[in-house]
Amino acid sequence: MSNDQLSTTFAALADPPRRAILARLSQGQASVTELAKPFDLSLPGVSKHLKVLQRAGLITQGRSAQWRPCRLEVGRLKEASEWVAEYQRFWDESFQRLDEVLQDLIKEEKKKNDGKGRKKKNDGKGSQDNAQD
Amino acid sequence: MSNDQLSTTFAALADPPRRAILARLSQGQASVTELAKPFDLSLPGVSKHLKVLQRAGLITQGRSAQWRPCRLEVGRLKEASEWVAEYQRFWDESFQRLDEVLQDLIKEEKKKNDGKGRKKKNDGKGSQDNAQD
Repeated sequence: MSNDQLSTTFAALADPPRRAILARLSQGQASVTELAKPFDLSLPGVSKHLKVLQRAGLITQGRSAQWRPCRLEVGRLKEASEWVAEYQRFWDESFQRLDEVLQDLIKEEKKKNDGKGRKKKNDGKGSQDNAQD
Repeated sequence: MSNDQLSTTFAALADPPRRAILARLSQGQASVTELAKPFDLSLPGVSKHLKVLQRAGLITQGRSAQWRPCRLEVGRLKEASEWVAEYQRFWDESFQRLDEVLQDLIKEEKKKNDGKGRKKKNDGKGSQDNAQD
């Protein structure tokens, strides 16, 4: 995969209507008219977005003369996913560190509560003694 | 996460030198001069890229007057990764289908070989009988 292909993929994804079109196509193929409807886009407007997605290899369009359905092509998304996955260890590590901090806090809290519990028990014993008096 | 933030992230990633800067920062923080060196970029050139990455929240830059190290910030990459992950089932499904086709081919090949093996065994028995004659 060339660097430029990845740039083309990311550039194509850098637009909310184009990502919405991909999300729609993930449900199944659709014609240009079907794609234009929910997004309140004009036909030329949606065609422009489809051209960008097609050039990026993120979709293909059927060649049938009457109904030219668009289809999602996931190969490029997989490449983008693989690039981002290289950084996953950072948030996994951050999560691990956060988890360690939380575990320490829980332990500390437990220690405090155990201390209070013992104090309360002693207090309880004291008042019982008083009640018996 | 707003749609526009995701667009800003993808737009910032749509450039090989900017992705290379992120890869360098994944090894540890670096000054602007250190970042410019391996990429054969001028200081103003690298500064321009750093501004784009900073505006996208992909990096931060220290405020110390002398050495202002840049650091990778993975939160935005995690969001981008989560968006792409929505499509993962498609290549997982493709892989599953490919696996099924392969399993079928293996079974078919095994059946063929078993057939050949039986034929060979019979042929062997035949020649032994001939030798005994």
